[in-house]
Amino acid sequence: MDFEEVFIYEHKVQFYETDKMGISHHSNYIRWMEEARMAFFASCGADYGQLEEKGIESPVVSVECRYKAPSRFGEVLRIAVKTDYFNGVRLRFSYSFLDAQDKLIAAGMTEHCFVNSAGTVLNMKKACPEFWRSMAANTF
Amino acid sequence: MDFEEVFIYEHKVQFYETDKMGISHHSNYIRWMEEARMAFFASCGADYGQLEEKGIESPVVSVECRYKAPSRFGEVLRIAVKTDYFNGVRLRFSYSFLDAQDKLIAAGMTEHCFVNSAGTVLNMKKACPEFWRSMAANTF
Amino acid sequence: MDFEEVFIYEHKVQFYETDKMGISHHSNYIRWMEEARMAFFASCGADYGQLEEKGIESPVVSVECRYKAPSRFGEVLRIAVKTDYFNGVRLRFSYSFLDAQDKLIAAGMTEHCFVNSAGTVLNMKKACPEFWRSMAANTF
Amino acid sequence: MDFEEVFIYEHKVQFYETDKMGISHHSNYIRWMEEARMAFFASCGADYGQLEEKGIESPVVSVECRYKAPSRFGEVLRIAVKTDYFNGVRLRFSYSFLDAQDKLIAAGMTEHCFVNSAGTVLNMKKACPEFWRSMAANTF
Repeated sequence: MDFEEVFIYEHKVQFYETDKMGISHHSNYIRWMEEARMAFFASCGADYGQLEEKGIESPVVSVECRYKAPSRFGEVLRIAVKTDYFNGVRLRFSYSFLDAQDKLIAAGMTEHCFVNSAGTVLNMKKACPEFWRSMAANTF
Repeated sequence: MDFEEVFIYEHKVQFYETDKMGISHHSNYIRWMEEARMAFFASCGADYGQLEEKGIESPVVSVECRYKAPSRFGEVLRIAVKTDYFNGVRLRFSYSFLDAQDKLIAAGMTEHCFVNSAGTVLNMKKACPEFWRSMAANTF
Repeated sequence: MDFEEVFIYEHKVQFYETDKMGISHHSNYIRWMEEARMAFFASCGADYGQLEEKGIESPVVSVECRYKAPSRFGEVLRIAVKTDYFNGVRLRFSYSFLDAQDKLIAAGMTEHCFVNSAGTVLNMKKACPEFWRSMAANTF
Repeated sequence: MDFEEVFIYEHKVQFYETDKMGISHHSNYIRWMEEARMAFFASCGADYGQLEEKGIESPVVSVECRYKAPSRFGEVLRIAVKTDYFNGVRLRFSYSFLDAQDKLIAAGMTEHCFVNSAGTVLNMKKACPEFWRSMAANTF
C-alpha cells in the first residue's frame, strides 16, 4: 500500500472513546472518518466551514467500516484518506486506519452528496466550481 | 427523600455508554440529565421542540454532577428531576440518579437561560407566558 | 416489507444526538443498531450480559449503514432487527430504521464474531450451545 | 490570569461535537477536560496508562462546568489545566477554556479518587509514591 499520495490524519484514542471490552468502541471509527475527512477538505483548500457559509451542506449517504484489530486508549492512529470518486454530485472517500506499527487495523468508506438550504441536491461543478476543482484535483 | 412530587425518567445504560473501567462513562450523566429534562418539559406541557419553533433556544449555563457509585451496562436508572428555581430568566433543575435498589448513585444540577435567534437573553414571563406558567406550576 | 416476524426496538432521538445540520448525527445510527441488537438478544433469551459473565465477548467485525432521509430531535424511530446469518462463528444482523409514518429512513447491517478472554475465536455451537440455539431459532 | 505555569491542551471542535443549536454540545466539555487531564498526567511523567497497569483506577468523583460563551465547529480551544489540590487521596483539577482570542469561554473542575481492583480507596503517597511526587510537584 503506497500512502505517498494520500492524506494522513492522526487521532489519539481518548479514554471516553473506550468501552467495557477495554477497546475503542466501534462507533468512534465513523466519527474519526469525519475528523479525517474535514482535515482532508482543509488540506485541499476546500474548507467545509466555507461550504456551510454558502448554505451548502453535505449529508452522509452511506458508511462502511471493517474492523481487523482493536485499538486502545492512548494509541495514536493514522488514518489515510483518499477520494475514490467525485462526479460533482456524489463524493466517495475511503479510509485506512493504521496503528503505530503500520498495521492496517480497520478500513472504511463514506459517500456524500451536497444539498442547498432547500434540500435540493446540487452538482458541485456548477454550484461551487472552486470546490469541485479542489476535490477533483485530489481524486485518484 | 420524597419522590412523590417529582418527575421520574428511566434510562437503560447502553453498551456504548461504558468505558474501559467497565462502568458508565461519567460524561453520560450530563447527557442523561438532558434526556430527563426534555421528558420533564414535555410532561409539563412545555415541549422543548415548540420553544424552538418560536425561535427560542435554551443554552446550558452550568452543570454539576457528584458520583457516589458507578452504574453498569444494562442497568435501568431512574432519574428524578425537579425545578429548583425559575424567575423567568434563569431556570435551575436538580437531578437524583437512583439504581434498581433505590440507592442514590449520583446527583446533579443544571442551569439554563433562554435566548432568541439574535442571542438576546429573554424573560420567559413576557417572551413565552404559557411556558412560564407551565414551568412555574412545577417549581418546588 | 413484512415486519411481523422481526424484532422492533424504539429509540427517541435525543438533543445531544443532533448535529449542526439540525439532524441526528450519522454516527448515532451505529449506536442505535447496538441498542436494538442488545434488546434483540434479550428478547431471544440470549442476554449479552450473561455471555460476558462466561468470559465471552462479541466484537463487531463490520458495519454498514445507508441513509435515505434524516431523523430529527424528538422523533421516535422504530428499528427492525433480524438475524441474517449465524453459523456459530459469524453472526450477521440487518436493521431497518422506520419513522413514525413507516417510511424507511435508513438500513444497515453488522457482523460479529465471538472470542474468549484469550482472544480466541469461538464456535458458539460448542462454546455456548444455549446461545446458539436461542439465536438459531431466530435466524431467518 | 497568568497561564505561564499551567499546562495548556488544545482541542479542535469536531463536527460530531456540535448540536442543533449550531454550537458544541455542553457535554463535550466534560470529555475535553478528560482529554486535557490525561495529557497533563503524561506531561507530569505520571502516565494514566501506567497507573492502570498497576491495577489502579481513578474514578471521577465530581464535575462542574460553567459556560460563558459557546464554541463552534472548527474552533481550536485551549484548555488550561491545573491541580488545585492533592492530598494523596483526593485530587482536584481546575480547567479554563480559552478561544482563539484568549477569551475565557468556560471554566470547570473535576475531583478524583484512586482505587485498586477490589475497589478500595488508595492513598497514593503509599500506593504509588512516584505518581504522588509527580503530581505534588505540579500542584499549585
